[in-house]
Amino acid sequence: MVSSEPNTATAGRPKGRSAVAVPELVSQARSGSPRAVARLITLVEEASPLLREVMREIAAHTGSATGRARIVGLTGSPGVGKSTSTSALVTEMRKQDLRVAVLAVDPSSPFSGGALLGDRVRMSDHATDPGVYIRSMASRGHLGGLSWSTPQALRVLDAAGFDVILVETVGVGQSEVEVAGLADTTIVLLAPGMGDGIQAAKAGILEIGDIYVVNKADREGAHQVQRDLRGMIALSDSSGRGDHAWKRPILATVAQQGTGVPEVVTAIEEHHRFLVESGELARRRGRRARVEVEEIALGELRRRWGAVSGRGDLEALAARVAAGELDPYAAADELLGNQV
Amino acid sequence: MVSSEPNTATAGRPKGRSAVAVPELVSQARSGSPRAVARLITLVEEASPLLREVMREIAAHTGSATGRARIVGLTGSPGVGKSTSTSALVTEMRKQDLRVAVLAVDPSSPFSGGALLGDRVRMSDHATDPGVYIRSMASRGHLGGLSWSTPQALRVLDAAGFDVILVETVGVGQSEVEVAGLADTTIVLLAPGMGDGIQAAKAGILEIGDIYVVNKADREGAHQVQRDLRGMIALSDSSGRGDHAWKRPILATVAQQGTGVPEVVTAIEEHHRFLVESGELARRRGRRARVEVEEIALGELRRRWGAVSGRGDLEALAARVAAGELDPYAAADELLGNQV
Repeated sequence: MVSSEPNTATAGRPKGRSAVAVPELVSQARSGSPRAVARLITLVEEASPLLREVMREIAAHTGSATGRARIVGLTGSPGVGKSTSTSALVTEMRKQDLRVAVLAVDPSSPFSGGALLGDRVRMSDHATDPGVYIRSMASRGHLGGLSWSTPQALRVLDAAGFDVILVETVGVGQSEVEVAGLADTTIVLLAPGMGDGIQAAKAGILEIGDIYVVNKADREGAHQVQRDLRGMIALSDSSGRGDHAWKRPILATVAQQGTGVPEVVTAIEEHHRFLVESGELARRRGRRARVEVEEIALGELRRRWGAVSGRGDLEALAARVAAGELDPYAAADELLGNQV
Repeated sequence: MVSSEPNTATAGRPKGRSAVAVPELVSQARSGSPRAVARLITLVEEASPLLREVMREIAAHTGSATGRARIVGLTGSPGVGKSTSTSALVTEMRKQDLRVAVLAVDPSSPFSGGALLGDRVRMSDHATDPGVYIRSMASRGHLGGLSWSTPQALRVLDAAGFDVILVETVGVGQSEVEVAGLADTTIVLLAPGMGDGIQAAKAGILEIGDIYVVNKADREGAHQVQRDLRGMIALSDSSGRGDHAWKRPILATVAQQGTGVPEVVTAIEEHHRFLVESGELARRRGRRARVEVEEIALGELRRRWGAVSGRGDLEALAARVAAGELDPYAAADELLGNQV
């Protein structure tokens, strides 16, 4: 398996009748074709009508084996060394012969494709490794945001048989919190000299991290970041999170040199074991499925509301609300009563 | 009217039977009580069941007068001087005797209250001015995000009779793009020395700005930022946006000293005139109403899906998806078929 080519997005677009049949595509992806995987993810990105069939095929093929891949989320502010860390983690995991997919999503961009492709250059170490698949994904599909597209892309990669899926997001805003909620294990990256202590508290990343990594640990201020984090985590534990028995580690790395990276991989393994033994893995995967189903249903409703015409439809109701004839709750009642 | 006190959030919480009746609260807000306005916005923030009644009362009182206030969005990366610029705009608008409300929302924080209150200190110039109302709002209500709560908060402020509502958001991520979509006029703030050129292109703010302001214009690099912006806007115009006849201005300010601020207020007025004359104002307000109605309806559905128990409900369906028994589209079909 090779890394996705720059022309992936184009290659993946279904071209009318020339598009490959879904069962064939799924079967190719399952037997290791990176091109087939790329096409399937493009279908997710485009919110293709074919997705319904794709997901049915995948479910049929995998049955209860769905959910085999470990899903690891990586998040952190720009500049903490996310791409370098991802690359170093991939290197380390490859030493253990794990097949690794990297899914990079940029929630800050409402536009399609390649926002992170610049960063992907750093991943070129892995470009020729058949055990590594790398993909940037547009954050906003036609029907919704990250929480619509990410779970379905994860499902495709899982069905394709990867052992680990690293989901890399930019920043620590609300969208990243949502993405982190989809991972089995979430790693929050920080670095000295970026005011990340305040940043962390503000964006609530204390609530989403399972593992904390202070990268660029050879720089001044790294110990201080670790100390601040330790204090904040202790505070957070004492206010209720402590009872779940997972002691969130704070690790230090210099990802550029690979220093400390094996310890991060070990922590991921330990957290996975904790998830399995505590039953938390099943809960998290149930939550992911819940988001997935809900978002698909809401997307379908949005489509119906936009498509139906007449007095009861969303446009007409909105016009009456804008004109002050109707309050928005009464309009919502009418929408739900008439259209669904 | 005075600025909201620090204890606003607490004061606004309905306390069982001791809570004031909705019609009375709306009437007080309409006759200029900042405490009543604060309570109503807290109801929005809390996604209170009383909101339905609030919105009905507001619609009844304002009728076709709804939508009188000019809604001006301000966005920009941290550090560009957003609070200072907001304060300077308020000062300038007060000279023209306009009543101004400032609504500050922080999409990066999933947690309640006060994320921006630190910044509000700079607004203390206006704390004793009865023509100014200032409010920070938690970005995530119980039922959803910004696009759920912001339009309803705007509706409250509009009903309370403000001439201008300044909506200040942090950063230029997806959430900010959504908020900007709710404003009549969106101002994008930049500053030299922050790598904002790249930032602007990346986050797609070229698509959302109606007016661009380069703040800290006395600093080195300000001219370069203006030049870069001009180039990017020309490029964007040539690729299709140019046909709408509004020539997006690029202004320069030193907000701390008030330099250039009257020109920004003039540009806001000119853009408002353009919006009215071109029919674009009606379109934008229709869009805002559409988002509002849609989000209320989706919130109601989420509530129903979460509340109903039995085989058909979301939890049970998600469990079957997680177990590989069902694909997510089939589950969404069942959800829509059974529950709505």
